[in-house]
Amino acid sequence: MTADVTAPELAVSQWFNTAEPITLAALRGQAVLLHAFQMLCPGCVAHGTPQAQRVHRLFRTDELAVIGLHTVFEHHEVMTPAALEVFLHEYRITHPVGVDTAVAGDPIPATMRAYAMQGTPTLMLVDRQGRQRLKQFGRVDDLALGAEIMRLVKE
Amino acid sequence: MTADVTAPELAVSQWFNTAEPITLAALRGQAVLLHAFQMLCPGCVAHGTPQAQRVHRLFRTDELAVIGLHTVFEHHEVMTPAALEVFLHEYRITHPVGVDTAVAGDPIPATMRAYAMQGTPTLMLVDRQGRQRLKQFGRVDDLALGAEIMRLVKE
Amino acid sequence: MTADVTAPELAVSQWFNTAEPITLAALRGQAVLLHAFQMLCPGCVAHGTPQAQRVHRLFRTDELAVIGLHTVFEHHEVMTPAALEVFLHEYRITHPVGVDTAVAGDPIPATMRAYAMQGTPTLMLVDRQGRQRLKQFGRVDDLALGAEIMRLVKE
Amino acid sequence: MTADVTAPELAVSQWFNTAEPITLAALRGQAVLLHAFQMLCPGCVAHGTPQAQRVHRLFRTDELAVIGLHTVFEHHEVMTPAALEVFLHEYRITHPVGVDTAVAGDPIPATMRAYAMQGTPTLMLVDRQGRQRLKQFGRVDDLALGAEIMRLVKE
Repeated sequence: MTADVTAPELAVSQWFNTAEPITLAALRGQAVLLHAFQMLCPGCVAHGTPQAQRVHRLFRTDELAVIGLHTVFEHHEVMTPAALEVFLHEYRITHPVGVDTAVAGDPIPATMRAYAMQGTPTLMLVDRQGRQRLKQFGRVDDLALGAEIMRLVKE
Repeated sequence: MTADVTAPELAVSQWFNTAEPITLAALRGQAVLLHAFQMLCPGCVAHGTPQAQRVHRLFRTDELAVIGLHTVFEHHEVMTPAALEVFLHEYRITHPVGVDTAVAGDPIPATMRAYAMQGTPTLMLVDRQGRQRLKQFGRVDDLALGAEIMRLVKE
Repeated sequence: MTADVTAPELAVSQWFNTAEPITLAALRGQAVLLHAFQMLCPGCVAHGTPQAQRVHRLFRTDELAVIGLHTVFEHHEVMTPAALEVFLHEYRITHPVGVDTAVAGDPIPATMRAYAMQGTPTLMLVDRQGRQRLKQFGRVDDLALGAEIMRLVKE
Repeated sequence: MTADVTAPELAVSQWFNTAEPITLAALRGQAVLLHAFQMLCPGCVAHGTPQAQRVHRLFRTDELAVIGLHTVFEHHEVMTPAALEVFLHEYRITHPVGVDTAVAGDPIPATMRAYAMQGTPTLMLVDRQGRQRLKQFGRVDDLALGAEIMRLVKE
């Protein structure tokens, strides 16, 4: 008997850089990189977000989907979708980014809660069968990340 | 006949990290570093702001005053004082930072206009007699900056 | 009809960091990274050699063999095997390194000539069937390299 | 009563990048940066030597003399003057570099012994009166170094 390791579906209240809403269900067959960040988190801005951009430029879209997730769990009043839009413009981020759905009475938004993330940045990989395969809080090494992504692409 | 090269006085609507408002007039006798930035400007976050912090840690306060200036000239609706306060907290910026005074009908705030800055980040040095001595837009080299500051301190 | 793309065998006059001489023939079944360098080549020391060390630490030995190749094509009188041994010790390089065999009357050593390398550093990948799959002169991106290596490991 | 803090004279057996031998005595009136290094010392190659080159480019020659000192205290058989000459060429080092004089029966060369240096890289500053003012083993911060040099230049 094996545990159900299907990655929880994304709960997103607003999308940027995509004409249509994105679901993990619709991405079956492709590997997925989820980059959870906050626009005023220094480690996200210095490392996580530029790395997601590098990955987005390197891999073919039909092999890997790169998706940002704005998981605001503090300072909600200033890290608004309007502020995020400016951030994405100024940092020239072109991959799809979703706003993780706020939950009444909980500072932690819905997707962040479903994945039990520790903080930001958190990088997650989902394989072509929709299973979560990696969840790493903090800085991730480029060499190791390139290898892990290709492992999922080639399975 | 020589031109008046006294640095324009700061026009600041709100201060952070200081109990009392700061004026260049009151800083005569000390060298001053002014670091003009916007909290969502990538070059400011990557280079200008960390450099201002390094300078603030290195020099004695009675030799050099390090002052940040939030010169918002675009996206005014999201780069508010409330957002700036979160930014300063998250990036652990401890030197005084003033909000450059907004001007009705002009996207460019008052001090930025008075100094004719080209954009952000801009680094300026003011000598012990209150005269502007350097104004550089973009990235500034640490080695050259250390030397220029000490030149003003030792005059 | 397809061209023979088997990677040329290594011609090595002296080995470091390995008890037995290494041949590509004996490595069939494993992917191989060849890092061609000169100990006094600035780009090799700054980028290529540290990258080879990072790769060596990341991948399992039975998946990937990392092999350095000291391809001296200039200043032969000072980049001797004795000097190389000191270099490997000081830079704490622990993967096997071979001295590319000098050829009388030719400044370019035998393996460098066989692979038609342009200069140093040059990074090459050989797949599990012994075929050359990548040859890149100059700086190589970590993310792309991690992916290319895993592609060969997973084939 | 104050101690004699005159910096010991350089003991150099061979010079590169200068037509005439250099003495500290002849440099009275200028500040001097001495950069002691070994060509196969990783910290020297990664940090010390490039920093000496940056300093050499930034300051006027009549304000500051930048002098490299090849203080070989290990692996003497491969860090020869002939090997150093190739190193200076490959790394495009253009400031004067002297070979610290070897001493029979002592692995430590004469100038390194006279200055009681701990290892390489070591950076030293000598003021316009010929007095030693700084001696730092290991990595030196650019901002602090720029300031310290200008302090000596302006005294």
